[in-house]
Amino acid sequence: MILGLDIGGANTKAAASDGQLCRSVYLPLWKGAPLDEVLDRLAEDRRRIEAAALAVVITGELADCYGSKREGVQSLMAAVKRAFDCPIFFWSTSGFSWKDPLELAAANWSASAAFLARDVGDCLFVDMGSTTTDLIPVRSGQMPAPRTDFMRLAAGELVYMGLLRTRLDAILPVARLGGKRIALAPEFFAIMADARLVLDGISAERYTCDTADGAGKDRSSALRRLARTACADIEEIGEAGALAIARQACRRQSSILAAAIKRLAERHDLARIAAAGIGEGLIAEAAERLGLECIRLSRTYGQSISDVFPAYAVARLAEADMNANSKRI
Amino acid sequence: MILGLDIGGANTKAAASDGQLCRSVYLPLWKGAPLDEVLDRLAEDRRRIEAAALAVVITGELADCYGSKREGVQSLMAAVKRAFDCPIFFWSTSGFSWKDPLELAAANWSASAAFLARDVGDCLFVDMGSTTTDLIPVRSGQMPAPRTDFMRLAAGELVYMGLLRTRLDAILPVARLGGKRIALAPEFFAIMADARLVLDGISAERYTCDTADGAGKDRSSALRRLARTACADIEEIGEAGALAIARQACRRQSSILAAAIKRLAERHDLARIAAAGIGEGLIAEAAERLGLECIRLSRTYGQSISDVFPAYAVARLAEADMNANSKRI
Repeated sequence: MILGLDIGGANTKAAASDGQLCRSVYLPLWKGAPLDEVLDRLAEDRRRIEAAALAVVITGELADCYGSKREGVQSLMAAVKRAFDCPIFFWSTSGFSWKDPLELAAANWSASAAFLARDVGDCLFVDMGSTTTDLIPVRSGQMPAPRTDFMRLAAGELVYMGLLRTRLDAILPVARLGGKRIALAPEFFAIMADARLVLDGISAERYTCDTADGAGKDRSSALRRLARTACADIEEIGEAGALAIARQACRRQSSILAAAIKRLAERHDLARIAAAGIGEGLIAEAAERLGLECIRLSRTYGQSISDVFPAYAVARLAEADMNANSKRI
Repeated sequence: MILGLDIGGANTKAAASDGQLCRSVYLPLWKGAPLDEVLDRLAEDRRRIEAAALAVVITGELADCYGSKREGVQSLMAAVKRAFDCPIFFWSTSGFSWKDPLELAAANWSASAAFLARDVGDCLFVDMGSTTTDLIPVRSGQMPAPRTDFMRLAAGELVYMGLLRTRLDAILPVARLGGKRIALAPEFFAIMADARLVLDGISAERYTCDTADGAGKDRSSALRRLARTACADIEEIGEAGALAIARQACRRQSSILAAAIKRLAERHDLARIAAAGIGEGLIAEAAERLGLECIRLSRTYGQSISDVFPAYAVARLAEADMNANSKRI
């Protein structure tokens, strides 16, 4: 059994290939979060569950604590090697064998896609995390061509929008309140997690990132943050006003997601969606609205695996490779 | 002679009614900046220049370190009273006499407008700071009706966009690079000051706010931040790519500004713009493009006064009131 690791900019995720361990740790690298500490704890987990090896995907290299993606990848690889005393396989957009460390940059989506190509077949893989959404066409067993985040943004295969951390004003630049159009302040006042919290879309426990103002993850603090996006406070626009902002933001995010799915499903002639991530429910709703079949990976593999799918996928891929190799011997 | 103070969320500005002192201090209240310290230093300045009194406008109450605007105004009033041992006049959206401290919230634009109504006459007063832009119709000596930031956003009299601090992706959600449309990442990766710096629109000294990544205010650091908005490196999109993002953002900001000016000039039938703030040059360009007369307040009062106009305006208003009162005696 293998332990898979997905080191993102905001969250580091771990999953064992047999599913016995699944963990997501909020670890904002750009804030100098204690990466070594967390990796040491995960290394202990590996020993405890007796995983034979570690398989790793990296996306945290974009965090602005690194001067370049190359520097980011190399620094993250070094941290992993410091922490783990077992065989380590790093996954790149061209698989486990690669030449340039830069091929490891933002490769987590490709691990998921490569695994699904074997395990599920043709589909549009859609994985919505706290910060971003990957939409990856998987066709006739082929893993998509290697792509950088930049190229994936251009292709619409990376939509820089997630369930929790995304600033609310980026999803909803203009709100309608009392018949008026209000351009929301482009400050770090509120995030989508605030909108979801007040609409009971998520519990305070699922609000796994920091709040914008450092205040609580309770309903009234979230309502205050939502009002602030309109340069207002609750005395001015009332709870109803803050809730209206939240509803409009969530509606708009669903539309953006559905449009992105529609575009890629049509472009690649795919009628089946494979949905994963903490936003799996949102993806399933969008697919239903579009009349597309949707495989919810939480139903196939379990919710906790769907939430950290790339970590699970890279572990399964490494396991398959090891088995193949041992058979060859 | 009177010292005027404009306490904003990001900057605190001071100006003497005779113009002998003009100062802007970057003081991000939401980051727990040392307000008392800065106010103590300004209190020393007041004694040194022998200002007879202090006149104050407040806009920092929106900073998310305060639970409500009321709490913000009261806490800022208390800080001012702690620091200054002279007569203090607080300006509200209804002038120096007010009942509810909440009338002091975001009243700096109204001090500027009230002063210009006396000193310049009918005009559309446009004041672009580091973070926001005020557009205030001044008609037949009338000071505009008191308005909250929320109502001013709805009326288009507050455009939450400034010369420096505004996140670049809020101005330019989608960039065009190499014929491709790239939706920029809604992260705190780069701000308009980065775009202006690389296009030589501002010097490093005029880059008066923090950088997004805490790195330098040099050209290559700014280019790195600009590339990051497209989830890219300079190695990927080259300096040309980063410069293209900067140019598109500045162009788009100019169009947004011109559209906002046009809308209000037409609505209030005003053919004359009074331009102030660190963005005065941008405002003058927009006015010229629209074929509107533009009074640059830096030409009338001096650049340093234009940059901190509400602080100067409230000082002049207090001085005028004191003279009027003394004459009455």
